[in-house]
Amino acid sequence: MRIDVLIENVHIYNSYFKTFIHGNAAILDGKFLYIGQRGSESFEAAERLDGNGRYMIPGLIDIHLHIESTMVTPETFSYGLIRNGVTTIVPEPHEIANVFGLDGVKQFMKASQDTVADMFYAIPSSVPATSMETTGGEIHIADLDELLRTERIICLGEIMNFVDVITDPDCKTNQIINHVRTNYPHLIIEGHVPKLLDLDLHRMIYSGVDSDHTHQSIEGMEARIAAGMFIEIQEKSMTDEVMAYLIQHDVSEHYCFVTDDVMADSFQRRGHLNHIVRKAIGMGMKPEQAIYASTLSPAKRMRMYDRGVIAPGKIGDFLLLSNLEQLTIEQVFKAGRKVYDVEEDYTPILKPPAFPAHYYQSVQMVPLKEADFVVRIEEADAVYTCRKMMVKDGSTFTEEGHAQVEVRQGKLLWQESGSALIATFERYGKNGNRAYGLIGGDTIKRGAIATTYSHDNHNLLVIGHNPADMQLAANEVINNQGGFSVVEDGKVIANLRLPVGGILTEEPLEQVAMEVEQLRKAMESLGYQHYNPIMSISTHSLPVSPALKITDFGLIDVNLGKVVPLIIP
Amino acid sequence: MRIDVLIENVHIYNSYFKTFIHGNAAILDGKFLYIGQRGSESFEAAERLDGNGRYMIPGLIDIHLHIESTMVTPETFSYGLIRNGVTTIVPEPHEIANVFGLDGVKQFMKASQDTVADMFYAIPSSVPATSMETTGGEIHIADLDELLRTERIICLGEIMNFVDVITDPDCKTNQIINHVRTNYPHLIIEGHVPKLLDLDLHRMIYSGVDSDHTHQSIEGMEARIAAGMFIEIQEKSMTDEVMAYLIQHDVSEHYCFVTDDVMADSFQRRGHLNHIVRKAIGMGMKPEQAIYASTLSPAKRMRMYDRGVIAPGKIGDFLLLSNLEQLTIEQVFKAGRKVYDVEEDYTPILKPPAFPAHYYQSVQMVPLKEADFVVRIEEADAVYTCRKMMVKDGSTFTEEGHAQVEVRQGKLLWQESGSALIATFERYGKNGNRAYGLIGGDTIKRGAIATTYSHDNHNLLVIGHNPADMQLAANEVINNQGGFSVVEDGKVIANLRLPVGGILTEEPLEQVAMEVEQLRKAMESLGYQHYNPIMSISTHSLPVSPALKITDFGLIDVNLGKVVPLIIP
Repeated sequence: MRIDVLIENVHIYNSYFKTFIHGNAAILDGKFLYIGQRGSESFEAAERLDGNGRYMIPGLIDIHLHIESTMVTPETFSYGLIRNGVTTIVPEPHEIANVFGLDGVKQFMKASQDTVADMFYAIPSSVPATSMETTGGEIHIADLDELLRTERIICLGEIMNFVDVITDPDCKTNQIINHVRTNYPHLIIEGHVPKLLDLDLHRMIYSGVDSDHTHQSIEGMEARIAAGMFIEIQEKSMTDEVMAYLIQHDVSEHYCFVTDDVMADSFQRRGHLNHIVRKAIGMGMKPEQAIYASTLSPAKRMRMYDRGVIAPGKIGDFLLLSNLEQLTIEQVFKAGRKVYDVEEDYTPILKPPAFPAHYYQSVQMVPLKEADFVVRIEEADAVYTCRKMMVKDGSTFTEEGHAQVEVRQGKLLWQESGSALIATFERYGKNGNRAYGLIGGDTIKRGAIATTYSHDNHNLLVIGHNPADMQLAANEVINNQGGFSVVEDGKVIANLRLPVGGILTEEPLEQVAMEVEQLRKAMESLGYQHYNPIMSISTHSLPVSPALKITDFGLIDVNLGKVVPLIIP
Repeated sequence: MRIDVLIENVHIYNSYFKTFIHGNAAILDGKFLYIGQRGSESFEAAERLDGNGRYMIPGLIDIHLHIESTMVTPETFSYGLIRNGVTTIVPEPHEIANVFGLDGVKQFMKASQDTVADMFYAIPSSVPATSMETTGGEIHIADLDELLRTERIICLGEIMNFVDVITDPDCKTNQIINHVRTNYPHLIIEGHVPKLLDLDLHRMIYSGVDSDHTHQSIEGMEARIAAGMFIEIQEKSMTDEVMAYLIQHDVSEHYCFVTDDVMADSFQRRGHLNHIVRKAIGMGMKPEQAIYASTLSPAKRMRMYDRGVIAPGKIGDFLLLSNLEQLTIEQVFKAGRKVYDVEEDYTPILKPPAFPAHYYQSVQMVPLKEADFVVRIEEADAVYTCRKMMVKDGSTFTEEGHAQVEVRQGKLLWQESGSALIATFERYGKNGNRAYGLIGGDTIKRGAIATTYSHDNHNLLVIGHNPADMQLAANEVINNQGGFSVVEDGKVIANLRLPVGGILTEEPLEQVAMEVEQLRKAMESLGYQHYNPIMSISTHSLPVSPALKITDFGLIDVNLGKVVPLIIP
């Protein structure tokens, strides 16, 4: 019979028996038709390919990630994915949603409708994350309905506020969950439930949330699986104990690997989900198991019945590997068509700006003045105890410290206190809110950094040791319509332009990776001591991440869930 | 916190680890809220139940069966199910559809909307099974659309004509499959693909059919699983080899147990899916494995994410067992409410006739005469070689035999030839078709049997050794508006009334079981030598079951797929 492609002489991964079988594969109309011993005597193939005994595995599938973490567009992201053998993803676009609301999600979906990698979307469930910040957009319940009318929405993205869900039946998250469960009873609801156990865990699952991608312990993982949760293992969960547990127990139906956040330089240097699979194999997991956990297992979780496996009727997404343990990718096929070959040129197609004009004009601010970094306090002249955000290497959590700072003639003399200043400016032209705090610990020791890449509200955040550098950094970012700027002694030492919504660039991945590395180095050169200073500064404004954070509403005591004053009364 | 039911001190089956854990279970609003060690110190329960250390397993789920095989209504069927621990089923109502078309399916759905057991429906995909028979109703493509607008349709029922599907792109079955795949891409398509292997099997799966419930061999089962098929194991597949394979291999995600057809007496005596589970355990399968294959595994196949497991958020369907190996059911709960207790009365609620009036008037025939069993042949007087349907014990397949029969004065002298006569009469008042054939082998040796329970067209089928007994049997069935009648020497020796569409009764299961046993004995008393004479005679008119069958179009050579003459030219 006539077929499109015949791949001969390959070791084909069989997902159902988790084993490799030597043979041939026939493809018709983008889908596998036949896997077995028959070859050219049975098929009249438009194209024949000698696999040279290589390993043939399904295209990798990543069901929990944020494209915005790489600061690139879906198009560029897809380019990076394909090279790394990832053919399907489920991004959760809550950053772009915080900037542009529903339209941000729709623009992402539009920008990815023709990408080589298939992108199905998770609806961001918490935009904004709290009511203590001004964002460019929000996701309302009516927006869910609009999104769910499209075929490209596959789940409700990570539900985070588990305390609210369990304790407050009327909170916004429960309104969303109830709306979804009533109107879309089959929609998958993804979760973010660190450390939850026993009755709290069961109540969360009872509410409809039945996955978790946070850091796992053995006890937590076992409790989750026993209660029917699906576990999404990201790199930080890949401890020796967790990997030993996954290797030794019959739990392959209950977990998969995901990337969550991959920065551009890591994407470029180490890869994407393939890096996680390679790492798992390196930690002693059988390749057959690690491949299952990054192909069929995630496909099943997302109820994508048409992929994740090399079998009749399934989409012809697959990789040819020259080395199984190293996951060395020679070629990548999407729907039966070769889309990457290590022997051939692989360059991104440069396209003109792909978003609406106002996406490039999202920083609605006039240039700042040095005076904007003078903190005015309506208190009598005296020394006051002030809250101070303490940054700690190894974590995105901060701690609340205290500093004695003098107020003189209505000004807080922060420079003389030995603390740096952190300031945030609402940048959507909505209310002109601004807030100030003190910052110390493992952050910069001199100069200034400004950014609009500040989770989740993406207002303009500036930290620094003097108003002049802070002003310069801030105005660089404003002029660039978003991004990062690092300044030392009145000189800009690094700039990363993120003109799309102030959080993304349309530059090629290679370029972004290089600039991210330069940015990181510049931040470190100012004394920032952190395994990931970009991630660190970006989460200073994240009011769901403990303990002391800042938004345009003011300093946030995250554990209390409320705004607190700079000066402790 | 407040809950509805607390079941304490039970060994609870955990489907995810396939093991029992001692503890308690809390139920709220019909769903499990919590499973674990917490008890009355944590929960304020409206109802508490001491489980006395019994085994608590999920309600059984049967995803492939035909209610009509039991000849009872959905209400009665549910009554029988619950007592046997079956809380959810997926019936495929193709018998009632052959009698009443789309409306038959709708009436079944209506009749089961308030049954205790949940019934989700498979759409019959082949009504009529061939174009060589007159049926009361048909299922058209437009009917699929109407059915699929309801929530109660869960899959497209067994696709049988695999030869057509593979070889004839334009056959009706492919039109249905294409319509479904285009318009309902997520709809499950069930299959009936005996013996198919290699390329034919893969092509069938490629077309969208990815389950099989026919008799399995090891080779066939392994090929099916490897290619992504789901296997539904019915009792006839439970050979020693198949069971050993299932026990020894890690294939629990790839199969489940089903009943397909259970006659009323077997239902009464042995039970339903619980009998299959008990039998599997008796054949050496671990109870934990057999329970998985009759609860979570079938639920997953049918993408019923809300049941099949005792876990938070899932429907509170469960059984309490006093003996695990024997599957001794003490109590059955549906959505947290007790619906059966071995210690308490369990009687069916007798209801008035539940179907539209014309459902009791489906046999549109005037009484027959003896002359209707005289076979007129327009041939010259001579002896002719005639086709003869040969019945074989142990099978519903027949073979084509031959007999020499004289034609004299335009009449076939069948009585003098030593063969019995088989006659079928179109009974829907559509065209008055009738057809005659000869029959022999392991069938009756004297007297006559008539029935409207004749797959799939359910026309009036009569076999017998003399016109008088045949006339009497036929007219009994006509007078009864359907059913079975067995006659010997001018006396009715058994009668089973099936007044609903000529195929069902509204009598209680116990009564039907008794009558079915009497019917079977009466048939045997006429010399019918078959392990299941009721099934045997009912399939004489089934033109998709080899080799020589009869419909109102005439004798059917099933392997050739066409009508053939009684006299071989």
